[in-house]
Amino acid sequence: MATLPLPPGSTLGIIGGGQLGRMLALAAARLGFDVAVLERDADSPAGRVAAHTIVGGYTDRAALAQLAALASVVTYEFENVPAEAVRILQSLGVETAPGAQALAVAQDRVAEKQFLNANGAPTVAFAAADTAEEALSAAAVIGAPLLMKTRREGYDGKGQRWVEHVADAAAAFAALGGVPVILEAPADFVRELSIIAARGRDGATAIYPLAENHHEGGILRRSLAPADVGSNLAEQAERIAARILGGLEYVGVVGVELFELRDGRLLVNEIAPRVHNTGHWTQDGCEVDQFEQHVRAVAGWPLGPTAAIARVEMLNLLGDEVDAWAKLAHEPETRLHLYGKREAKPGRKMGHVNKLKPL
Amino acid sequence: MATLPLPPGSTLGIIGGGQLGRMLALAAARLGFDVAVLERDADSPAGRVAAHTIVGGYTDRAALAQLAALASVVTYEFENVPAEAVRILQSLGVETAPGAQALAVAQDRVAEKQFLNANGAPTVAFAAADTAEEALSAAAVIGAPLLMKTRREGYDGKGQRWVEHVADAAAAFAALGGVPVILEAPADFVRELSIIAARGRDGATAIYPLAENHHEGGILRRSLAPADVGSNLAEQAERIAARILGGLEYVGVVGVELFELRDGRLLVNEIAPRVHNTGHWTQDGCEVDQFEQHVRAVAGWPLGPTAAIARVEMLNLLGDEVDAWAKLAHEPETRLHLYGKREAKPGRKMGHVNKLKPL
Repeated sequence: MATLPLPPGSTLGIIGGGQLGRMLALAAARLGFDVAVLERDADSPAGRVAAHTIVGGYTDRAALAQLAALASVVTYEFENVPAEAVRILQSLGVETAPGAQALAVAQDRVAEKQFLNANGAPTVAFAAADTAEEALSAAAVIGAPLLMKTRREGYDGKGQRWVEHVADAAAAFAALGGVPVILEAPADFVRELSIIAARGRDGATAIYPLAENHHEGGILRRSLAPADVGSNLAEQAERIAARILGGLEYVGVVGVELFELRDGRLLVNEIAPRVHNTGHWTQDGCEVDQFEQHVRAVAGWPLGPTAAIARVEMLNLLGDEVDAWAKLAHEPETRLHLYGKREAKPGRKMGHVNKLKPL
Repeated sequence: MATLPLPPGSTLGIIGGGQLGRMLALAAARLGFDVAVLERDADSPAGRVAAHTIVGGYTDRAALAQLAALASVVTYEFENVPAEAVRILQSLGVETAPGAQALAVAQDRVAEKQFLNANGAPTVAFAAADTAEEALSAAAVIGAPLLMKTRREGYDGKGQRWVEHVADAAAAFAALGGVPVILEAPADFVRELSIIAARGRDGATAIYPLAENHHEGGILRRSLAPADVGSNLAEQAERIAARILGGLEYVGVVGVELFELRDGRLLVNEIAPRVHNTGHWTQDGCEVDQFEQHVRAVAGWPLGPTAAIARVEMLNLLGDEVDAWAKLAHEPETRLHLYGKREAKPGRKMGHVNKLKPL
């Protein structure tokens, strides 16, 4: 079993080798940890800054055994880690975080909304449907227009469709592949916000200031943080974050996407049991960023401070936008964070910049 | 030959695998570079966060050829890189930085002081001696007490002796191994300061605020930055730094150790053609730290801003002082930087902390 708090010099395991894993690995290195990355691709953004890359699928027993031999604490860069992988690691004596409940809730949009509502974190009205017939009758209850999403998988706007008329629900169900879906009433929101929060193994929590987020084509384009919000919104968001952290007995950093309604109430759009794109501003806007915070939490260390030290505009660099690096490097207020991805496919997150202004 | 500015995704070579190489590698990764470390030890602090470790001696032709095959730009974490290694790399088409003159000057305390004085950067009075007889006559000119140091090698107080009486000079010469030495008049200083400065490939310079430094047993204990200095001292230091950067046609970050005399003049103690322990405060005290600044300079990128955003007390963690990590992790104002060294030998630099205060 792991010695906690995990001493520097120990190896931290990370499942997933993308940019979130890379930035987690860099934060872990700063605290004196070695990192072992489990990833299908031998040449991954995270693997190239880690002491060890284990090449394998996420439920590959031999690969998980290798990871367990190196790392007594393992975390993940994404929410779709198979529950089986976590069970295997735990059976090998590894401490995994965030926990199985957080993954289960984040992997199923219906379970997620049920958890949120049961814990006093409000969401839009929703209904589940496993068949075209159920989709039609659920649509009649929710009313159109509505948003239909696959219950599982899907990210950055993939796996979802707008349904303009109740009668279109069966066709939308078929178009999404005939898999179980969730139907969601639209949120009449004026703004998308998010809050990044952390909970340590001792139950202590740390919550960052809110970010205001702008998406394009389902992909995050920019975040402004700390968001310009009154104390009412900030308190609502912190209360929601605290309920989620407590309800899941969470360990690590969570990203909570919020809708600000016209009447000033906040609804939870979704939760991501990991470091989150809308928290990248903390790298240059806070003394302890979300990546170090996550490492601290899963390693059983005390959490660090979360106050903002600068106002940040975070811009994602998608696809060939990363080619502007030379121009961006000339801007004194701009901090570059590039992920080392080999190919700039359209829409692919290649890096981001944090543009700094005084608080 | 290297394409400059070096595009993200390229591999940056670093000779030396210690903590300075590690922190350079982490900064390079943030900018999207891969890193290749050349180091004798297969399991080094820098190698564990780099995409490639090439195990070999610094003049090992096969190892240097491997490095050149990966990296079109190579830099160093320490000043005692053999000139032959640089020549071999250059013959293989690699851009190396800092340049050969900077290394030559930094490797020979006499050449260093001659360069400094020729460029209007004042030092203590000094004389060279290759024999015991020369040491005696030089001591008679300089006067005792004086400090005798080997011309080459030596760091953290090693390779030097105080000579209390002129007649003791021959014995001191023998005690230092009978190798060429430099004799230095003592500096009647009230304070030790340092300045970290950078010069880009385009000749642009960027200079950080001064740090005040406290040594114990020849090893840096703590730095306070920005140092509490008036505009006279700051201007003197900036002028000295600019002369050094220009005189060496320098590319990269340089650390300049200074003595503040009773009369308010500054003398240069020594220069280090690399990132420097007294610049670690910039990691949490500036938007762009000395490590990213060095990477930017050697990669041909524009330099970043150097203004302080916080007041920092940097404390080195020597030997088993690093065992206090759990206590230090609890301090909200304390940022930890641990190096991943396997063994905490007495006096060994295992990590440092930056304690933050508002400006």
